[in-house]
Formats: sequence, C-alpha cells, structure tokens
Amino acid sequence: MASSYSMTRTVDFCETDMAGIVHFSNFYRWMEQAEHSFLRSVGLTVSNHQDDGTTIGFPRVSASCRFISPAKFEDEVTILLQIQRIGVKSVTYDIIFSIGERLVATGVLKTVCCQFSPGEPLASIEIPELYLSKIEEYSE
Amino acid sequence: MASSYSMTRTVDFCETDMAGIVHFSNFYRWMEQAEHSFLRSVGLTVSNHQDDGTTIGFPRVSASCRFISPAKFEDEVTILLQIQRIGVKSVTYDIIFSIGERLVATGVLKTVCCQFSPGEPLASIEIPELYLSKIEEYSE
Amino acid sequence: MASSYSMTRTVDFCETDMAGIVHFSNFYRWMEQAEHSFLRSVGLTVSNHQDDGTTIGFPRVSASCRFISPAKFEDEVTILLQIQRIGVKSVTYDIIFSIGERLVATGVLKTVCCQFSPGEPLASIEIPELYLSKIEEYSE
Amino acid sequence: MASSYSMTRTVDFCETDMAGIVHFSNFYRWMEQAEHSFLRSVGLTVSNHQDDGTTIGFPRVSASCRFISPAKFEDEVTILLQIQRIGVKSVTYDIIFSIGERLVATGVLKTVCCQFSPGEPLASIEIPELYLSKIEEYSE
Repeated sequence: MASSYSMTRTVDFCETDMAGIVHFSNFYRWMEQAEHSFLRSVGLTVSNHQDDGTTIGFPRVSASCRFISPAKFEDEVTILLQIQRIGVKSVTYDIIFSIGERLVATGVLKTVCCQFSPGEPLASIEIPELYLSKIEEYSE
Repeated sequence: MASSYSMTRTVDFCETDMAGIVHFSNFYRWMEQAEHSFLRSVGLTVSNHQDDGTTIGFPRVSASCRFISPAKFEDEVTILLQIQRIGVKSVTYDIIFSIGERLVATGVLKTVCCQFSPGEPLASIEIPELYLSKIEEYSE
Repeated sequence: MASSYSMTRTVDFCETDMAGIVHFSNFYRWMEQAEHSFLRSVGLTVSNHQDDGTTIGFPRVSASCRFISPAKFEDEVTILLQIQRIGVKSVTYDIIFSIGERLVATGVLKTVCCQFSPGEPLASIEIPELYLSKIEEYSE
Repeated sequence: MASSYSMTRTVDFCETDMAGIVHFSNFYRWMEQAEHSFLRSVGLTVSNHQDDGTTIGFPRVSASCRFISPAKFEDEVTILLQIQRIGVKSVTYDIIFSIGERLVATGVLKTVCCQFSPGEPLASIEIPELYLSKIEEYSE
C-alpha cells in the first residue's frame, strides 16, 4: 500500500488573482514543489549532477488538475503526494490539495527520468537503481 | 466543423527555468491568455461587470497539458484554441502549442460560467444567451 | 534601536531561470512575503476587513533591490526585514537577503496605508492606532 | 539626445492580485521584457552564444520602481525605455509605464555585461564593441 508525503504552505498574496482566489496556475507549481520536497525527504534531488558532467532530472510528461473549491490568501494548503505508479522510466504521482477538511483540488503529475548533457537534446533513461530503490522503499 | 482561434507569443526570459526551457507552469497561463484573447476577439470579456453589481466569469474546472517538446527563450509559440464542447454551463477548449511545424504541447481546458456577487460564494449559472450566441457563432 | 524579523525559504525550481539562478523578479515577491509574515507575527494581516465593509491594506509605493550574488535551486535564503521608518501614512522596510554568511541582495520597500472600498479608488489614510502600536512595539 | 524604445502589452488575468490590480512584481518582469525587446530591435539578443562556448548576457545589478497609479486586467500598458547611461561594463535604463495619458509607474534598471562559461562563476566584462556600437547608435 502506498504511503504518502505531505507538506503545508501558506498562500502568498502574489498567488491570488482579481477574483480574490489563488490563480489556478499556482497549483501546478505547488505540485512540483511537493514532488521536489518529497525527493529531498528520501535523500534525492531533482537536479542531480553526475560525475560525468551530465545531470539527471525528472521533466514533466503531463500534469492535470481539477479545481473543486477555492483557496485564498493566508489559507494553509496541505499538499498530499502519493505515488500512483513507478514505470521503467517514469514516475506518476497523485496529488490532493486540501485546507483543513475541505478538498480544494486533485491532480496527477507524470514525470520521466532524463539525462541532460550540456548542448544535447534531452534523452529519457531508465530510472537509475539508486533513485528506484529510494522511491520504491518509500512507496511500499 | 469547429473553427479555431490562434495567437503567437515570444517566450520571455522569466518564463525559462534552470533546465534552459520554458517552465511547464507557463503553459497553463498561456492557455488562459489564448482563451481570454479569443473571448475578446468575439466581443466578450472574461470578467464582465453586470448592471446589478455582479460579475460573470469563467473559472477553471480543470486543466491538463501533455508536454511533447521543449520551448526556449525567444521562441515564437503559436497557441491554437479550438472549442471542443459547449455545455449548458461549461465550455471546453482543446489547445495546441507549436513552434513552426514542431508540436510542443497539447492541452484541454474546461471552464464553467459563474456569477460573482461581492462577499458571496461563487455560483455556476447557465451560459447567458449573449455569450452563447457569440461563442456558438464562432464554433460553427 | 530597531529589532528585525527574519524568515527562511528554500528556492523553488520554478524560481530559477535559464541562467541557472533565481530570476530577479522573485526577490520582490520574497520582500512582500517577509513583510506579510512579519505583520502576521505581530497579530496583523495585510488585508484587513473592517466592520464597515472596507479593507485596510498596505500597497507598495516603491520597491528597489540590489543584486550582489546569485541564489540557486534549493538554496536556503534568509530574508531579514527591518523597519527603517514609520511615517504618518507609510512604513518603509530595509531588507537583506543572504545564504548562510553570504550576502545575496539588499532591498528597500516603501508601503502606504490605504483604505479600499468596493468600487472606489484607493485612498491613503493615516495608519490606524491599532496597527501603529503593534508595529512600533516591534520596532522599539 | 536619447531616443526611446517603446512596446505595449495587454495586462493578463494572471498578473492581477486580489486587490484587483496588477501585482507589483510584474513591473520588474515587464522592464526586462522591454529591455530584451529593445535589444532584439537593434539586432542583439540578451543571451548570446559565442563561438568559444561562452554566453554573453546582461544580468541585473539593481532594479527599482515607483508605483503611481494602478494597472488593471486588459489595460494596454505602454513601456517606454530610455538609455540613461552607457558605462564601460554597464547599461542603465529609465523606464516609464503608462496607460494612455496616465502615468502608472517609473523605474530604473541597471544591467552589467557578463560572460558565462558553463560551470564557472559569472564574470563582468567590458561591453563588446559589437554591442556598444549598436546600443550607442540607438541612443544618439
């Protein structure tokens, strides 16, 4: 059974829009912040410089979000991240945004493991064993 | 047969991230910019003050995006907006992002017509006739 | 002698740009976050609804920043806020951004107390006694 | 006598905040957009890859802005850029934001010419002759 990672953040003034609520584009940033915070919590980083000068990262394949109720300035939003699926090259997360007991939004984020070499196009790779073991350990 | 609306914008420096490409959260902002630009093009605005002090708007129900190839600083990104479906209360758009012939991303944006009264919670309403006629006229 | 308020935040991926460092526009957002966090710490909020339907807030008059050294992804940035001057209607803050011992940037933020009535233009007012006492208490 | 470069942009919904006006941090982004647009107009780019693998750019030394009147959703904001001073290594711009005849904000942006080598710290350099001639030609 998958365990889940959660973090809480206070809504900033600059994240609101003229409708008086959080602009929807911020939910995608928050998804990513929760993902990166989770990776740090298991000793990984999303931008990992290798000895050979390349970098291993997890660019987004897709991200979706459904908006259920609004979040406002100074609300404490809890972002719950759950691993939906670990593929050979990809990791998919389910995300639940809530304020107290109230559901605010739900999202799905699919990332793919890639190796970046300076000046080269992005290439997807199998998730390295080190990453896999730490992420799987968590999701068990 | 649905016609489509398109706009083009130059990628700003502040829209890139340390991977050297456009940060994915900007695609959701661009979706919305294309939607608003489309509404203006048919003589509507997304934030319409009514005589009775209320405002009619189209908050997002959901938004998703698949990322196919990267966009970079100073790229000219074309955002093509097509009406997928007009419901009683909602409008759903298909969006295609491209740079020249190259496909960059595809998205779906579902919005719902709402009436805002100061101090009241958001209430969804049937799309007013004025809006419906202008949007339908376009999509025919 | 002025006391100072400080907060620390981790640099998010979406705050970096293609130069691999934090985009300068984020420093202005961080200034505001520190100001709001300070106001909360003394029991105030930057967006205070009054019984008469108006709201008291502190819009920006001016904001400047000098950039001394770069901040990067996952850096822990400390934002130190010090009250430079309390005027009849305005509050001016000095802000120092640092990472450990390293100075990153310095800023000045001048805000003015305003009353917002729905549909009316913004009007500056003398800082209400309640605000003044809490801010002055802090700065002594 | 200095000539000036200007561009106009429509305020996006996502640039507003809960006070119903453009969030102040966007003015710094607009400054940079006008600067980059100006550089493109004289045949330069702010991120210029050299044959030797390095990149020449103009990071910000400082940026300040005074806010005079608000900008709102769908306003057409004109950004006027004027070269205040060309130093050996730096270029300083004066910026005026207006909507029609109404003054919205004024700003000053100081940039310094730098050479970026992958993995090296940023180093300021004298502005290369090619840049200097094109910028000076404009400012005469």
